[in-house]
Amino acid sequence: MKIVVVGATGTIGSALVYALQNDHEVIAVGNSRGDYQVDMTSEDSIRELMGSLGHFDSLAVTAGNVAFNSLQAMTSAEWQKGVDSKLMGQINLVRYALKALNENGSITLTSGIIAREPIPKGISACTVNGAVNHFVKAASLEMPRGIRINCVSPTVLKESSATYGDFFPGFIPVPASTVAQAYKKSIMGIQNGRIFEVD
Amino acid sequence: MKIVVVGATGTIGSALVYALQNDHEVIAVGNSRGDYQVDMTSEDSIRELMGSLGHFDSLAVTAGNVAFNSLQAMTSAEWQKGVDSKLMGQINLVRYALKALNENGSITLTSGIIAREPIPKGISACTVNGAVNHFVKAASLEMPRGIRINCVSPTVLKESSATYGDFFPGFIPVPASTVAQAYKKSIMGIQNGRIFEVD
Repeated sequence: MKIVVVGATGTIGSALVYALQNDHEVIAVGNSRGDYQVDMTSEDSIRELMGSLGHFDSLAVTAGNVAFNSLQAMTSAEWQKGVDSKLMGQINLVRYALKALNENGSITLTSGIIAREPIPKGISACTVNGAVNHFVKAASLEMPRGIRINCVSPTVLKESSATYGDFFPGFIPVPASTVAQAYKKSIMGIQNGRIFEVD
Repeated sequence: MKIVVVGATGTIGSALVYALQNDHEVIAVGNSRGDYQVDMTSEDSIRELMGSLGHFDSLAVTAGNVAFNSLQAMTSAEWQKGVDSKLMGQINLVRYALKALNENGSITLTSGIIAREPIPKGISACTVNGAVNHFVKAASLEMPRGIRINCVSPTVLKESSATYGDFFPGFIPVPASTVAQAYKKSIMGIQNGRIFEVD
């Protein structure tokens, strides 16, 4: 399979590339590194990326930013960050990927545990991850040509727990290599419209 | 109580005003009619509205637009409509209302049944309503000064079924007067972080 990983240079993305590269042709897309670059907050940049990639079998998005702050302190620009990147960035990648995906291909997006377990300063992450989960559920019912779409919703990563662990008291960190398996399940499985929770 | 209804001139909003007006001071806010006007897609307009209203006890938002189209046909402008209006419009109303609400006040937002029951052309409504539900769940854990926040998620209205009924096969329409009772429950009850489903 020809598999496009957007966010390939991140912690989850590089674990996913590692898990796929022996058996598949993996196209690594990053923000500034990788085989191709994309600014997922820009529809023009996404259109250009998809124009360069040609046809492929699978898209996995392991990228997308949100801002962390309290409801009362979060600025409009911080709200916009999550909406433009993790929400509309992923939706726009889906919209353009649908034209490039081969028959019976798949799309795998990323949400996160904060959708169901709110944490301090996680209001935007909860809102945006919830939106992504709902998008995937609805989109799965409209997929053309046998294409499937799922989402992986991971807890905090072992690799990130030194940096973010204090925000997640009582959460058991999971290694990125374990999270990567959920993307593999989505890519190689038959599921459609599933939110794969990894925690 | 002094209760602000944003969307007061709409079908649900006018039923809610009718249900409240004998016992409370109701401030009717519309897009072009009502006691005050607001463009909920504009943060400046929301800031101006809240500056004019002074302090109040309760905010109910029965307004917010989304576009209806298939995933493959929906344009960027159509996606933006739901994000700017029903999602960020409601979130921005909450952000500014928090500064104007009296102690032990309440906020009630509106999502909709499409969050849990996708329909053809309902991909943006599913995504945005899901986001609003998640926002309310997380926001309820950050409310200051005894303020509560809930959400009403109604099915298709009896009053709208001539216009929209064909999009909702098998859905039992509910009169706006019944939906209005869920807002009353949120405003006068003790619940916090609840999604009141009316269907």
